[in-house]
Amino acid sequence: MTVNGQHYRTLWLKANDPSAVQVIDQRRLPHEFAVVDLRTVEEFRRAIQDMTIRGAGLIGATAGYGMYIAALTSPEKGALAFVESAAEILTATRPTASNLAWAVKRQLQALRACSTRAEMIASALRTAGDIADEDAESCRRIGEYGLALIAEISKRKRGGTVHLLTHCNAGWLAFVDHGSATAPIYAAHAAGIRLHVWVDETRPRNQGASLTAWELGQQGVPHDLIADNAGGHLMQHGWVDLVITGADRVSRNGDAANKIGTYLKAVAAQDNGIPFYVALPSSTFDFDLSDGVKNIPIEERDPGEVRFMTGKTADGRIETVQLCPDSTPARNWGFDVTPARLITRLICERGVCEASEAGILKLFPEKNP
Amino acid sequence: MTVNGQHYRTLWLKANDPSAVQVIDQRRLPHEFAVVDLRTVEEFRRAIQDMTIRGAGLIGATAGYGMYIAALTSPEKGALAFVESAAEILTATRPTASNLAWAVKRQLQALRACSTRAEMIASALRTAGDIADEDAESCRRIGEYGLALIAEISKRKRGGTVHLLTHCNAGWLAFVDHGSATAPIYAAHAAGIRLHVWVDETRPRNQGASLTAWELGQQGVPHDLIADNAGGHLMQHGWVDLVITGADRVSRNGDAANKIGTYLKAVAAQDNGIPFYVALPSSTFDFDLSDGVKNIPIEERDPGEVRFMTGKTADGRIETVQLCPDSTPARNWGFDVTPARLITRLICERGVCEASEAGILKLFPEKNP
Repeated sequence: MTVNGQHYRTLWLKANDPSAVQVIDQRRLPHEFAVVDLRTVEEFRRAIQDMTIRGAGLIGATAGYGMYIAALTSPEKGALAFVESAAEILTATRPTASNLAWAVKRQLQALRACSTRAEMIASALRTAGDIADEDAESCRRIGEYGLALIAEISKRKRGGTVHLLTHCNAGWLAFVDHGSATAPIYAAHAAGIRLHVWVDETRPRNQGASLTAWELGQQGVPHDLIADNAGGHLMQHGWVDLVITGADRVSRNGDAANKIGTYLKAVAAQDNGIPFYVALPSSTFDFDLSDGVKNIPIEERDPGEVRFMTGKTADGRIETVQLCPDSTPARNWGFDVTPARLITRLICERGVCEASEAGILKLFPEKNP
Repeated sequence: MTVNGQHYRTLWLKANDPSAVQVIDQRRLPHEFAVVDLRTVEEFRRAIQDMTIRGAGLIGATAGYGMYIAALTSPEKGALAFVESAAEILTATRPTASNLAWAVKRQLQALRACSTRAEMIASALRTAGDIADEDAESCRRIGEYGLALIAEISKRKRGGTVHLLTHCNAGWLAFVDHGSATAPIYAAHAAGIRLHVWVDETRPRNQGASLTAWELGQQGVPHDLIADNAGGHLMQHGWVDLVITGADRVSRNGDAANKIGTYLKAVAAQDNGIPFYVALPSSTFDFDLSDGVKNIPIEERDPGEVRFMTGKTADGRIETVQLCPDSTPARNWGFDVTPARLITRLICERGVCEASEAGILKLFPEKNP
């Protein structure tokens, strides 16, 4: 997508310097657009863990390039052991997103088939590029399938504005390009469909306020920022036509882990008869899990993310403020799981399917045991 | 309740100076405990509108004292016209809470029966005191009825910790004393029942993080602050035994307007089979409205409350930070309405009843047409 009119992906091999990968530092958005270099496995580990980069697809693509950097910085003797250790380090950074383990595993499988270190480096670079390209292409296709759903609502409303609600950032910043939940929005906007997006601010890390609002603004898509608490009220009064969110992991039965708070919107959408879509590339499926609500691991993060908030002061400084009393304890889970029964359809690059094992396996027959 | 061990109500006639009413400035909590004097109708208007004081019961009690100050500052000639104009000014400050109009109307009725200005002043002071005392007493009784419900759960859990979730601040700060949603909590805590409260931070104005967390801390009740998004996840995993919230207006059929986001918790509680209670003094009922979801007016507030957040910096200054891009528009509704069908029971000073016209009229037979 574009930043100030110039095309960007969220990560790329540095121009004229294949020893560095560049990413947009998402912690500084929306107040500053900054690009940082990653050159070591440790730098990749930190970038994923401290959320310099975040989002299901981008975590996977970054891990893919992290494995390339591991191969590139491996010793001549013991290169495979080195990349295997890097694989463990990278996989341990975030427990919920399945794209992470998926990308690392894909790299490892290819690396284990190599016979020399030079071959490993070449293989890892190729695989990293493939993962990133496939992610972007998957998101583009999700956009096409989602566009058809939005166009149908627009037609039913006789061209009246279609109001979408989205939670967190499943935008192009969460992937390599286009995004998952936002891909249909961008495709519909490009197709001239009148639409408007309700952007959940998405406490505690405010990815809606800081990332989704920023990217929708950059692409010129009409939107309004709302408190996470507001969505139910909007749905009750007919001001939401559909909800689209992304996912961090979707189990075989269609349960979808996504940013904490997604489940609350799904249950409210059902209560009001509003379609609730989850958009995801196939790398986000975890075909090994048959019950997402019970078994998807949910990351518990630093309570400080709830107790403090960071933003820009009137004179342009970035400042962190404490919201609660000094002695108040807090808890902070990063994700929740929306049961398949609340999901109208899954949108992925192979098409639109029911959120059920039967529905998913129709699109992924190779996963049928 | 107590602040640093000393007993306080949330408003009182100033000692040795009956021309001033004192209130706790709730905008400065939790970082500073400050008391301010209100001496004119304009000061009362501003205190209600800018949320120096807030919360259904306290808005009503403050409006009651505002009418006393109106009588006290009225001209000798045209005193009734002056208090009638004050009544309009005060009623217009906040559209959702029914206690406001209720208290002003009660004052006006008594004032219209007076024959002299001196009589009006005496009457208004007496009525203001009555409204405040009745509010505190109603909350105390709500605590007793709610205690029985919590004790039952505690017994079922064989004395294991009872986990409550509450949204916004329906604490003693929202009333004259005890609170509505918190009264059962304080009563159960005093009775030695092991309990723990999940405190929704309650964006956009963070009344949970700044007020509920503060007052629970002051009373020594175990609690954890959470993002508003977290409640559904907690309910799914059995970590919430009951939800208790307050209300700003409850219609004849049991629909309850309360802080924006309450409806999302109610619908999630239903999805997980968790009891959802709404606690309110009878002054919060609006017997003239038969459909709350359709007809309770919902205040839309300054979008800046969503775009900015205020808190304490590391070096102790109060600072406001911007969360979204400079150009991001926002919308900000203050309340939503939870349909009666999602409410397990209403708890009020006359007892516990079904959230339905039949249930409510059993407790309020005098409202039966």
